[in-house]
Amino acid sequence: MSQALERFSINQWTVRSLGMPELVDACARHGIEAVGPWREPVADYGLARSAKLVRDAGLRVSSLCRAGFFNRPGWLADNRAAIDEAAALGAACLVLVAGGLPDPAAAVSAPDDDRAAGDPPADHPSADPAAEHWKDLTGARARAIDAIAELVPYAKESGVRLAIEPMHPMYCADRGLVSTLAQALDVAAAYPAETVGVVVDTFHLWWDPDVLGQIARAGREGRIASFQVSDFLRPLPADVLLGRAMMGDGVIDFGPLCRAVSAAGYLGDVEVEIFNADVWAADPEDVLVHAKDRYAALIAGELQHSVAG
Amino acid sequence: MSQALERFSINQWTVRSLGMPELVDACARHGIEAVGPWREPVADYGLARSAKLVRDAGLRVSSLCRAGFFNRPGWLADNRAAIDEAAALGAACLVLVAGGLPDPAAAVSAPDDDRAAGDPPADHPSADPAAEHWKDLTGARARAIDAIAELVPYAKESGVRLAIEPMHPMYCADRGLVSTLAQALDVAAAYPAETVGVVVDTFHLWWDPDVLGQIARAGREGRIASFQVSDFLRPLPADVLLGRAMMGDGVIDFGPLCRAVSAAGYLGDVEVEIFNADVWAADPEDVLVHAKDRYAALIAGELQHSVAG
Repeated sequence: MSQALERFSINQWTVRSLGMPELVDACARHGIEAVGPWREPVADYGLARSAKLVRDAGLRVSSLCRAGFFNRPGWLADNRAAIDEAAALGAACLVLVAGGLPDPAAAVSAPDDDRAAGDPPADHPSADPAAEHWKDLTGARARAIDAIAELVPYAKESGVRLAIEPMHPMYCADRGLVSTLAQALDVAAAYPAETVGVVVDTFHLWWDPDVLGQIARAGREGRIASFQVSDFLRPLPADVLLGRAMMGDGVIDFGPLCRAVSAAGYLGDVEVEIFNADVWAADPEDVLVHAKDRYAALIAGELQHSVAG
Repeated sequence: MSQALERFSINQWTVRSLGMPELVDACARHGIEAVGPWREPVADYGLARSAKLVRDAGLRVSSLCRAGFFNRPGWLADNRAAIDEAAALGAACLVLVAGGLPDPAAAVSAPDDDRAAGDPPADHPSADPAAEHWKDLTGARARAIDAIAELVPYAKESGVRLAIEPMHPMYCADRGLVSTLAQALDVAAAYPAETVGVVVDTFHLWWDPDVLGQIARAGREGRIASFQVSDFLRPLPADVLLGRAMMGDGVIDFGPLCRAVSAAGYLGDVEVEIFNADVWAADPEDVLVHAKDRYAALIAGELQHSVAG
């Protein structure tokens, strides 16, 4: 394998049509030494079988995606299961996506519960403040912090590192209410760095005026558990969840971000994670070739430069 | 007019089918005392005529939208013209939207300029780093800061207050690369507060973990030039530019934001500014009634509470 690709990792969702055995086969053929599997295909193939598969293939598991979603019913059992899975797979970390605001239908004591089905919504949503309680972002963030506190002892016992992922603010309401690297680091600061780290994802963080300073802080605090790369499309597609792109196809200037992560002392794998309709429609073989090429052209040199310098 | 509406202002884009005379007529009928006109309809009706119209109607002009877009050709002349217009209208401020990253087609010394029209794009965008130069976000932000520096003396002479508007990070690439209130305040800090302020817009800022602290800072530094309200839709529509909604129809908890703006000492008008396909398709008469009702229900009380308390 070329030296340029020695830290390259493929996140399974980039080639999401591949199950675990197909993914591991593809890595062997393409000289890829690290993977970031997702829990769903791991469960489909079987956890123990998946763990044996990656171990026998000599693959590093750069992360397991993903747990969190602390606003969903059953989150605690699900997160504990995810920690067990990360331990079994020997994953470098378990990615935590905090989830968004609660579902208003699930909000307690919503007065609209008494309305007959088919009634139009009340015209003044705030007539009863309880009906709007689900919009309390500060409260929802506090609950996410409490949830992480509850997970930490179990993660520590299991030898699993949790990785809090700050997500782009456009996902704050529906997916991830940890919105900046500074916020993620503030939450992580309450725990040992070997148990709680953060994810640095170029797509989520590139816009932040303070991102380089916060990456440096993350390095000083020993918190970078995962580095994920993908590009940000301009214009965004109709479904903003698919606003990621192959590196080079969007607006992100990867050099400064990669150099900052290197200067922060991160020496782990670099995961290519792309949610994109065109990438998903393409032949996974072509996607892997393309991802390796773009990584070599746009990412690897920036990392080596920094390590060397 | 009811006391609840004494600080209510209608931004013209919320009822964008109304030209200046129709807008001023509607304000009289609806007991609205302040407006936020846009430059295009002002130009359509004529600047001097528009200024006389609002003056004769006794309307306050809470802001003029908008100047900025420092990445466009001719930005300096356009911004000076906007300052003249704001002065003529007696606007409380001129909203500055910084613009996004440059258009790659306009980037200097892009090697692709030599390709024949119709050639496919180069597969490795970074083969020549100059081709990617337009992605330099730090450089683009520095150019926006330089542009504001160039405008300040002219604004000061004209007695016009510039209002830097931080925009939601999902617009960073294509519309506004000032992304947080902290960043806007850092830029404004170089100038007297009476010449350079900031816009606090709930849609753009609600997600920011630091927003309440930065609103307090904006108050201490005397920088709040405009307060704009609209809601944030979940899910976002296909065109994210139209992700705003009538207050109450989205995810924003207005209470904490309004109380923070009040506690920061802001006593000016509160502009309802909504870019939304359904709002634009509705009868402007209905939109005004709806906006006033929602403002009374969700906004006015929070402001009064804070002023009283």
